[in-house]
Amino acid sequence: MAKKYVYFFGAGKADGKAEMKNLLGGKGANLAEMAGHKDLRLPVPPGFTITTEVCTYYYANKRKYPPVLDAQVNLALKKVEQIMKKKFGDPNDPLLVSVRSGARKSMPGMMETVLNVGLTEKTIVGLVKKTGNERFVYDSYRRLITMYADVVMEKAAGIEPEEGQGIRKQLEAILDKVKKERNVKSDSDLGVADLKKICAAYKAKIKEVLKKEFPDDAKAQLWGGIGAVFASWNGKRAISYRRIEGIPEEWGTAVNVQTMVFGNMGDNSATGVAFTRNPGNGENQFYGEYLVNAQGEDVVAGIRTPAPINKYSQSDHNKHLAILSELMPDIYKKLDNIRKRLELHYKDMQDIEFTIENGVLYMLQCRIGKRNGPAAVRMAMDMLKEKLATKEDVVVRVTPSQLDELLHPIIDPKTEKTAKVLAKGLPAGPGGAAGQIVFTANDAVEWRKQGKKVILVREETNPEDVEGMRAAEAILTARGGMTSHAALVARGWGKCCIVGCGDIEVDLHQKTMHIKGGAALKEGEWITLNGTKGTFYQGQLPMLSAAEENKLFNDFLKVCDSVRTLKIRTNADTPSDAAKARAFGAEGIGLFRTEHMFYGKNSEEPLFRLRKMIVSKNVEERKKALEELFPYVKKDIKGTLEAMDGFPVTIRLLDPPLHEFVPHAKEQQEHLASSLGISLEDLEKRALSLRESNPMMGHRGVRLGVTYPEVTEMQVRAILESTAELLKEGKKILPEIMIPVVCNVAELKNQEELVKKVYAEVLAKFGLKKIDYLFGTMIEVPRAALTADELAGTAEFFSYGTNDLTQMGFGFSRDDIGGFLPDYLNKGILPVDPFQSIDVRGVGQLIEMGIQKGRSVRANLKVGICGEHGGDPASIEFCHKVGMNYVSCSPYRVPIARLAAAQAALKDKGKKAKKSK
Amino acid sequence: MAKKYVYFFGAGKADGKAEMKNLLGGKGANLAEMAGHKDLRLPVPPGFTITTEVCTYYYANKRKYPPVLDAQVNLALKKVEQIMKKKFGDPNDPLLVSVRSGARKSMPGMMETVLNVGLTEKTIVGLVKKTGNERFVYDSYRRLITMYADVVMEKAAGIEPEEGQGIRKQLEAILDKVKKERNVKSDSDLGVADLKKICAAYKAKIKEVLKKEFPDDAKAQLWGGIGAVFASWNGKRAISYRRIEGIPEEWGTAVNVQTMVFGNMGDNSATGVAFTRNPGNGENQFYGEYLVNAQGEDVVAGIRTPAPINKYSQSDHNKHLAILSELMPDIYKKLDNIRKRLELHYKDMQDIEFTIENGVLYMLQCRIGKRNGPAAVRMAMDMLKEKLATKEDVVVRVTPSQLDELLHPIIDPKTEKTAKVLAKGLPAGPGGAAGQIVFTANDAVEWRKQGKKVILVREETNPEDVEGMRAAEAILTARGGMTSHAALVARGWGKCCIVGCGDIEVDLHQKTMHIKGGAALKEGEWITLNGTKGTFYQGQLPMLSAAEENKLFNDFLKVCDSVRTLKIRTNADTPSDAAKARAFGAEGIGLFRTEHMFYGKNSEEPLFRLRKMIVSKNVEERKKALEELFPYVKKDIKGTLEAMDGFPVTIRLLDPPLHEFVPHAKEQQEHLASSLGISLEDLEKRALSLRESNPMMGHRGVRLGVTYPEVTEMQVRAILESTAELLKEGKKILPEIMIPVVCNVAELKNQEELVKKVYAEVLAKFGLKKIDYLFGTMIEVPRAALTADELAGTAEFFSYGTNDLTQMGFGFSRDDIGGFLPDYLNKGILPVDPFQSIDVRGVGQLIEMGIQKGRSVRANLKVGICGEHGGDPASIEFCHKVGMNYVSCSPYRVPIARLAAAQAALKDKGKKAKKSK
Repeated sequence: MAKKYVYFFGAGKADGKAEMKNLLGGKGANLAEMAGHKDLRLPVPPGFTITTEVCTYYYANKRKYPPVLDAQVNLALKKVEQIMKKKFGDPNDPLLVSVRSGARKSMPGMMETVLNVGLTEKTIVGLVKKTGNERFVYDSYRRLITMYADVVMEKAAGIEPEEGQGIRKQLEAILDKVKKERNVKSDSDLGVADLKKICAAYKAKIKEVLKKEFPDDAKAQLWGGIGAVFASWNGKRAISYRRIEGIPEEWGTAVNVQTMVFGNMGDNSATGVAFTRNPGNGENQFYGEYLVNAQGEDVVAGIRTPAPINKYSQSDHNKHLAILSELMPDIYKKLDNIRKRLELHYKDMQDIEFTIENGVLYMLQCRIGKRNGPAAVRMAMDMLKEKLATKEDVVVRVTPSQLDELLHPIIDPKTEKTAKVLAKGLPAGPGGAAGQIVFTANDAVEWRKQGKKVILVREETNPEDVEGMRAAEAILTARGGMTSHAALVARGWGKCCIVGCGDIEVDLHQKTMHIKGGAALKEGEWITLNGTKGTFYQGQLPMLSAAEENKLFNDFLKVCDSVRTLKIRTNADTPSDAAKARAFGAEGIGLFRTEHMFYGKNSEEPLFRLRKMIVSKNVEERKKALEELFPYVKKDIKGTLEAMDGFPVTIRLLDPPLHEFVPHAKEQQEHLASSLGISLEDLEKRALSLRESNPMMGHRGVRLGVTYPEVTEMQVRAILESTAELLKEGKKILPEIMIPVVCNVAELKNQEELVKKVYAEVLAKFGLKKIDYLFGTMIEVPRAALTADELAGTAEFFSYGTNDLTQMGFGFSRDDIGGFLPDYLNKGILPVDPFQSIDVRGVGQLIEMGIQKGRSVRANLKVGICGEHGGDPASIEFCHKVGMNYVSCSPYRVPIARLAAAQAALKDKGKKAKKSK
Repeated sequence: MAKKYVYFFGAGKADGKAEMKNLLGGKGANLAEMAGHKDLRLPVPPGFTITTEVCTYYYANKRKYPPVLDAQVNLALKKVEQIMKKKFGDPNDPLLVSVRSGARKSMPGMMETVLNVGLTEKTIVGLVKKTGNERFVYDSYRRLITMYADVVMEKAAGIEPEEGQGIRKQLEAILDKVKKERNVKSDSDLGVADLKKICAAYKAKIKEVLKKEFPDDAKAQLWGGIGAVFASWNGKRAISYRRIEGIPEEWGTAVNVQTMVFGNMGDNSATGVAFTRNPGNGENQFYGEYLVNAQGEDVVAGIRTPAPINKYSQSDHNKHLAILSELMPDIYKKLDNIRKRLELHYKDMQDIEFTIENGVLYMLQCRIGKRNGPAAVRMAMDMLKEKLATKEDVVVRVTPSQLDELLHPIIDPKTEKTAKVLAKGLPAGPGGAAGQIVFTANDAVEWRKQGKKVILVREETNPEDVEGMRAAEAILTARGGMTSHAALVARGWGKCCIVGCGDIEVDLHQKTMHIKGGAALKEGEWITLNGTKGTFYQGQLPMLSAAEENKLFNDFLKVCDSVRTLKIRTNADTPSDAAKARAFGAEGIGLFRTEHMFYGKNSEEPLFRLRKMIVSKNVEERKKALEELFPYVKKDIKGTLEAMDGFPVTIRLLDPPLHEFVPHAKEQQEHLASSLGISLEDLEKRALSLRESNPMMGHRGVRLGVTYPEVTEMQVRAILESTAELLKEGKKILPEIMIPVVCNVAELKNQEELVKKVYAEVLAKFGLKKIDYLFGTMIEVPRAALTADELAGTAEFFSYGTNDLTQMGFGFSRDDIGGFLPDYLNKGILPVDPFQSIDVRGVGQLIEMGIQKGRSVRANLKVGICGEHGGDPASIEFCHKVGMNYVSCSPYRVPIARLAAAQAALKDKGKKAKKSK
């Protein structure tokens, strides 16, 4: 038997069903389901779907169809004719059809549609007779000619006109001309004579431009339409859309041929779209709009204001219009009944399209409805209660970015739509923020004290700006990438931030920001940032805020927790960050950076002492400075350990190159020099000797610990003494000492000896028999991953520092990628910024290799991630897949991570279930 | 049967043989060979070797011996007694023995020796009677007591005295005191009574200090000596020596117990050392020295000047002394005969020790003799002619560092020995050089013009210094590592260079160089550098030069060529470098750096145009600047391609970050700004925008080619047009276009399109049908190695850039490792600077993985290396092993590489032969 290429649906029957999306496309599968499933059997105009396999065949065989297709189409068409009791091409009572694309995944506007197929000089006569509505018929004919000329004929002629130069525009010009002659504004004001004249002019124009006659044969039109849909799969727009969305070329599209029904046949006709629940807030209410006497495209086009289908759907814009439930109560009742059956059947909110033709309701489409974040959470939790959804369903119903919407205020989308984008940078910290421009950290602090909201605009930020960054509503920088200083700090605080905005130029002297090819903004002017998109606007745009303390939100995350296996930790450097992260559900700290206490609030004293240590000339001076520094370091560590009582805390020893801490300001340099009793010149010399060409790969991390063992010892003492004191208070403290930038097991052994020495000293001092702690390493240098089997002999845990691993894996300095990354993304050389989402193909190999090698030596090796990727859902899925124990991210990303981890667990379970079949 | 732990030798028989070095140690194996091999049967004093397995057992069993050892030693000792017709410990005619260490690999001075074992109060009497030489006997006794106390008793007591505070010093003090009392200078002037008194005083001192009696029992002495040798295997000195030399701990040492023979029994006794050929120049002449009436240690100690064994061995220092061939002609004849038999047997030059006791010749040691570079080459080639050696032997007889000696002038070793080292840095460019200090590149050029020899001393060098570096005899820098700018440039020219000398401080203002804890040297003062060691000296030391054009040298390399399979290319950027490398045997260019034309001589014009290109504001400006630049780029490329006629030339497209070329000098900046018609301020802004935090991982390599496609096109055009022109002249030109810093196949595809476009244009312009060229990539970013299978789909060749691969693999910035690398090497965290020799364990994995993945997709993928490692013998061996097609190194390293490649091929063959057995 020949392969089945054509699937019929209609009149309570269907060859296909919802599960056959790959073969029938989304639209076709749902039409079959609605028409044929025994629980539904909805009034779907009959039709048939030509499968995606025909598309594949078509491209594999020089744009030819399988030989059996013609017969199968004819057979399906005959079934439709029998149901409709009309014949396609019949001069007396012609059947009209639509021809629509329908891929596996919706590609809105990317492929072609032809409506009213089957209208010819002959069938027009029959249709007029049958409908008694000549105007309607010629209007439909005009639409067919326009679409067909544009979609089928121009493409087939191989013409690729410039934007706005195509045949459609030329036909529209004719229409405009007639309207002008007739002095009318709307198409609907044109009469039958006008339309007839227009149709004739259209056909002449087509002949003139495309050198072909508009086909006056129904079958020719049908096959023209089918061919146009298949051809559009490899149209320019579709190809670039697929590239962006990652849709494989071989998927192909299906073609849906369906009986035309008309919402534009008079006042007892209408067309509409609706959602089975409110997609804006998730309430369990039928929500939608419709237009009387209109076709589907009219609702979308926005020429007339659509009316609400019920009271619930009323708004300020449409409350003067008649509601469907009152205008056509019977039809509305039927529709509401369909709504309930669809939800019960699909167990999720549906987005539906319907048409009422002469008082008869038809369903034209149904699909899972899009929704915003708050709505997604509410619907999921409601459906769990309504037993429409299981726990597993709930977890996959909300995307991480939807959840993120609940965590930050956002610019009111309606206002933003109409606002002019001043410039675009990298979206480094999510949410929206408005404020007055300031150009220095000091100004940010000062203005804030005066109660003003400010946006800190900088060329790029450095650790000395941190106070100002905290004071600002948001940060905007001209340079730097997604993991630049500004981006890291802002994300850590959940603060709105845009970085690497190459189109702005900061003139610090004039306190002015110049925008490329645009205006200059001065200090004090208002701007509004969208940190989720990376765009910003002049003036103060209104904000919407999604409640942070939201019961549904927390309940939803508890459902996620019940599903996930990956632990979620946080990156936190202060007791208050730790407390906040705990509130968000963090189960420990994956990264405490000892150096961060030198950046933050109240950092003056410890920073000064750190600087003394750094510019010490010899071990004695250094040890003295370290003694002074010790109490500060210990205080922060102890506070954080206490805040995480009961959970593990990974403390990374001093990581950055020392030069980063040398003061730049003359005043501070003089203070430092005088306190050390050395000349400013000597200080400068010492600072100069610390300067490096490529500090990222310089004297930092464990390399500092090897050359200055006393620095390691001081930190380890602070950790273990804090732990000892808290243990004595009865707390459960689980410190994990982590060595950064390791590339070699010998480094680890060298540091382990120091740790053991201090450990023995602390035990003695506190009279303890033991303190539980783990000793481990960051894996952030490629060589560490390559020699992970050696490292695991000494390290009890690995924590992947994927920021640096990505830097070194790619050879990309994250501070400098601004020069080429935009080009790389635009040209499709990189699908995504690898500092945002783990590069599974390359860096991922190192990660997987490291875990395998490590566990080959130490089976119970604890493995986590503490780079920025720990808060990225795709990366979290990868971390789950390769068998990590936990991910760690900034406090504000903890909820996202809980969700992503749950989704990863379900996906993995699904895969395993599939495999075991 | 019990395991054999003791191997006898003597009287024409031996249990062991030369091949048993692992078991018997080098010394023991050769003693057995000399004594027992049927072709030799030399007069070796009988004795026995306790195997290295006993050493292993000893350490595995808490310093106990295998139970059977005692019996086996007694049995062997009995054999010796039978031959010597004396008994150990016999009061009438005692046998005396020496106890010496002997590891697999010679560890000179690292382990212990005890001579004259068996002398006790009782045996002294018998020996005096037997020899009639009371003075000799007590002198021997004194030596035994000293050695035994030092080597056995002090160590056993667990005392670790400070340097110069041990028992040996205390005993020597007694000797000095007696000499003073007796008013004599030399030990030999002391009489029997003095010696008796000294022996008594020694024993008393030992009792006092070590709380134990000196053992008066022969067997006790013997076992004490054996134990001391085994214990010394894990002495501090031995451990640190093993670490440096990479000798595994488990090898262990053997112990050789051998009948004492005495060269100090009167004027018909003597002792000497000799080489079967001259180790200084390789001539086939017997060469050695001896001392009458002396023990072996006296020759080494240098108290008396040894005499030459024959006329050939005479020198200015010893020509007044009697030569052995005249003093004892019969003995000399015997020795000369032994020399010939040894060479015939061992087929290599031997280093021998002999003793003449009362007119009887004994052989105490033979081993492969050390030799310098010129000697090694001459001996190898001579022996090939003499059929003593095969081609394969010849190749392994010369080490790469010996060959290197022939390539550079060196400081006269005799003078250098006595010169005071001023400071030490990293040995970046080999050989020696003397000159007057200058501190700027300009001064170097100026002084040189005046005919002066100068050493350029800089904090660190940058591309603007290149002219001065070329003018200087040598370069000395305070900062930078083995692959810093100075090191790379100097090595490329084969120029003497020391970098990263942290002990010097350059005061450019005062034109003075301060040496830590030492003097200051001013401009114009003479210094002499040893770039092979990294040391430098005050004043002008004399130089020796090994001829560069040396027939033997070339013949030797031809032998190497006949053995190797790896091709040797060179890194060259100019026609003259290319010509030089061809003369050295290069078979192509593995790395031509397009940017290097902007550094070298006559770079002013092209550099200026490059700078114009760099600071261009837009594509139009840039294209104009590129057009101006084109002729310069093409000229160098064409000249180099022509110089390599018949060989492939790999041309790497522009690699460094553009900022590197921005002028620093105000004057040049002004010139540039005015030529562009922009303000100095604008220029500075543009330059600032190019500055990067970590330029090594910034906007460079292919990233430039992606963002500025016109830059790639210009270079490709220069390559292909040059090739086309030369092809038309009938030359065989094989360009290989190489894309640097690739991390992603999409980058490569992007550049390939540009290449193809230009290719088509050039074909059309020259009316050619095709031009043979290859398109390939550097593998220098870890991700490139990880995704090599993807890259190989597009790249026709891979060239490993191991400098950058090491930088990113380790996360070591080579410009900044000065801060920690010395510590890493000292603390044994790294066995060797990974920029000098490929880190096989880590970076090597990436290399191997890349080759395997690459060839899995493209079986005939051409693979080479163009990093600095291409000239390092150990790295070359690795490159051979992993299946590379070629290595590429600086012209002066080409001969070394030819040798190393040959040795690698032999080693590999040997391994395969072994495996197939």
